[in-house]
Amino acid sequence: MRRVLPGSLLSVCFLSAAAACLTSDSAAAVPSLPSLPDTLRSTAASLRDEALQGTRAFEIVRSLTVEVGPRPAGSEGDRRAVAWGLRTMRELGFANVRAEAVKVPHWEPGVSTGEIASPWAQPMVLLPLGGSVATPDGGIEAEVVAVPSLQDLEKADPEKIRGKIVFLNKRMERARDGSGYGQTVPGRGRGAAVAGKLGAVALLLRSVGTDNNRTPHTGGMRYEEGGPRIPAAALSNPDADVLEAQLAHHPDDKPVRFHLVLGSRSLPEADSANVIGEIPGREKGDEVVLLGCHLDSWFPGTGAIDDGAGCAIMMEAARRIGALPQKPRRTIRVILYANEEFGLSGARAYAEKHAAELPKHILAGESDFGSGRVWRISSSVAPEALPLFDELAKLLTPLGVERGDNEAEGGADLSPMAPARVPLVGLSQDGTYYFDLHHTANDTLDKIDPKDLDQNVAAWAAVAYAAAEMPGDFGRAPEPDTLSPR
Amino acid sequence: MRRVLPGSLLSVCFLSAAAACLTSDSAAAVPSLPSLPDTLRSTAASLRDEALQGTRAFEIVRSLTVEVGPRPAGSEGDRRAVAWGLRTMRELGFANVRAEAVKVPHWEPGVSTGEIASPWAQPMVLLPLGGSVATPDGGIEAEVVAVPSLQDLEKADPEKIRGKIVFLNKRMERARDGSGYGQTVPGRGRGAAVAGKLGAVALLLRSVGTDNNRTPHTGGMRYEEGGPRIPAAALSNPDADVLEAQLAHHPDDKPVRFHLVLGSRSLPEADSANVIGEIPGREKGDEVVLLGCHLDSWFPGTGAIDDGAGCAIMMEAARRIGALPQKPRRTIRVILYANEEFGLSGARAYAEKHAAELPKHILAGESDFGSGRVWRISSSVAPEALPLFDELAKLLTPLGVERGDNEAEGGADLSPMAPARVPLVGLSQDGTYYFDLHHTANDTLDKIDPKDLDQNVAAWAAVAYAAAEMPGDFGRAPEPDTLSPR
Repeated sequence: MRRVLPGSLLSVCFLSAAAACLTSDSAAAVPSLPSLPDTLRSTAASLRDEALQGTRAFEIVRSLTVEVGPRPAGSEGDRRAVAWGLRTMRELGFANVRAEAVKVPHWEPGVSTGEIASPWAQPMVLLPLGGSVATPDGGIEAEVVAVPSLQDLEKADPEKIRGKIVFLNKRMERARDGSGYGQTVPGRGRGAAVAGKLGAVALLLRSVGTDNNRTPHTGGMRYEEGGPRIPAAALSNPDADVLEAQLAHHPDDKPVRFHLVLGSRSLPEADSANVIGEIPGREKGDEVVLLGCHLDSWFPGTGAIDDGAGCAIMMEAARRIGALPQKPRRTIRVILYANEEFGLSGARAYAEKHAAELPKHILAGESDFGSGRVWRISSSVAPEALPLFDELAKLLTPLGVERGDNEAEGGADLSPMAPARVPLVGLSQDGTYYFDLHHTANDTLDKIDPKDLDQNVAAWAAVAYAAAEMPGDFGRAPEPDTLSPR
Repeated sequence: MRRVLPGSLLSVCFLSAAAACLTSDSAAAVPSLPSLPDTLRSTAASLRDEALQGTRAFEIVRSLTVEVGPRPAGSEGDRRAVAWGLRTMRELGFANVRAEAVKVPHWEPGVSTGEIASPWAQPMVLLPLGGSVATPDGGIEAEVVAVPSLQDLEKADPEKIRGKIVFLNKRMERARDGSGYGQTVPGRGRGAAVAGKLGAVALLLRSVGTDNNRTPHTGGMRYEEGGPRIPAAALSNPDADVLEAQLAHHPDDKPVRFHLVLGSRSLPEADSANVIGEIPGREKGDEVVLLGCHLDSWFPGTGAIDDGAGCAIMMEAARRIGALPQKPRRTIRVILYANEEFGLSGARAYAEKHAAELPKHILAGESDFGSGRVWRISSSVAPEALPLFDELAKLLTPLGVERGDNEAEGGADLSPMAPARVPLVGLSQDGTYYFDLHHTANDTLDKIDPKDLDQNVAAWAAVAYAAAEMPGDFGRAPEPDTLSPR
């Protein structure tokens, strides 16, 4: 568990008896308390309420999914996405629109198939995991051994694994906050490495998803440096059910055997880019409110919810602020990050290239959890700035957004900025159905309700405007090392 | 419109003043009126109510989908399904279990792919329609022309179609009774024939389904004798959306072009069989109550709802009747028909081989609409037998089943018996979600709620038992030619 420091509690403390509540260190750093002026509140409220009447966000994600479609790092789609981002940002009126070059890994899924070979032959629907090696020509056929979890695999007797195909059969649980993902995704990331060390010849993963469609989930996986590299694929949940049932019912003299053919391959590193556009600040142009999303997608779908939606939300929120009669004091910078999915290439490149500017990044947020409505706002700001953040958070109360804690992580693409202690805002979206679609062929435009996007735009526009316009700032985020490990 | 002759109305008429209500023809044919004895009602009610406590139906469809899986006519899966049917019927205690040989067509989908080639290249998910010819090696690439319906295609100017790929873009509407299917499926059956005559080079069909998954729908199509034979495939609904959007937004100088590769092929006719088992009648063994379903499936799914569910329902309903302390008077015959999907081969073979027996088929029903709950009971019986059928129908009232009309069609496999005027019972199932799954890869076991199957078993067991035990019979079904054409 990490330290729990609810903003609302701190806020009450501060108003009543600040010195008694805060540590001496942080209390000493707060000479006076800025708050949000009425004109700011009123403008933020207008941005929020007008967005609910309808925005261009759906049209943005429509054009990305229809005119680009799948755009995994390094692919032709990725290059077209960068061109789309530059063109669209310019059309939307952003300033300083540019592509900042990023080298990205390039891996292709190829043609990949599989079937249960015995006792009861059946074709299976599967996808290779991102980064998997191919099988040899003609594929691999071997007996299947089921393991209920990565923890069980780690403790398994190598005698039972050697020469077999490991079937990692853990079901993901549905939850609004997507918490089931964290419990299953380590099997995707490390399952092949662990199984390979025990002598397995391949890994089959039950899809890390909450749906029951024949649309397998994919996503990044990693081998250990110098460790064995075995092919790894995910079965759709209904296919995993059949494999599970055959394992439960097969005759003793006919073990379950699987035939797997993966045509995946790694190619040389490719050129991609972070696409950046700005609403320049009218007074403090060097201070930045960063709104992020990622431009790449996995290969099976058109990347509508992951992360076309996030890019549409952020671009449209910033565009609406830019269209105000008076721009805010600080610069709003929208970043469409390159290659979030397969190693955070764009995020690392940005943090490195802009290292000198990061102390003037006064708030950063990322939208990368689909198109579900925002229900919570969390922060990662200096403790002494919590009252100010609480004021900002209250701007979202009419949207049904509750105040979360001060442990926002803000999104994967923001993580490389952690050493610079850039303050973060996290807007939690309803993820109840997100993992029905995430990283599958079903991640397509029809899954997005435009009104949900509008609600997200309303929330981000209000937050970004307030942060860019407000007097004072949020200090720096708590030191990463002040947090206990999870 | 067909004649409307609601059973409940007739029933009321009969009880009050029969001669005034019935036509002179049918009134003259009814010397006395049998009704259902109390002991029969009580046994039927027990069968019904006990089934609601749990049946073996789910286990039956589980074993079919796990141990056989896809079983299109003529395939290896089809042969294994016949063996499964024989084995399972014997295990369930049926008598006279046999396979009656049927020749079936044999067609394979092959490896089939497609993509939008321009203006914005994107891979598309599609399946060939059942019976489609292949494309030439390397596929076909041509400009796409969208047509909103088969009717519009029939009236189209050949100049606008010639050399193009026709995209038949009609959406299916969702309805409890599945009525949207009848409005769209003619495009699947005849679209390629009509487009081919106008000079089209291929047909792309928006899937005849109500889902928004990347799981295209397939199903039978036919060319005209001597007419052109062009390749035909269905796009999933989300893929059809992308094609539609590109057609709406493409630049004038860059028409939408599609590249289609179908690897489908027709093979020589193959051997299959109707699988039959019986609960022999204790008194009138030559009189038959026929319970039908079909054993074949389309290729993408495991045929759980179409029609594993129907077979499980019928086998389990009959098994429960066979397990009674005293078997009913008449024989209950369960038929797992061969090749319903691609030409009713088994149904035609049965009607021909058993032609002499059909006058003693006193009632026939088929379960072939998934696993949704029964909500209506319809008949096709002699008008003078409607009061008796109404009594039987009332056995289902506690299941929430309403009385339908006397125009039951009973199921496709029963249609070849129409000339013999075999009385029919139709149990309408809730089909609200049926066409999300029907003929797609998503037709898998996880979509079935065992409690829904139990309700179906309850209904069929009560109906079949009552028909097999009752005094009197339902006469013969109305002459087909007394009905106006639809």
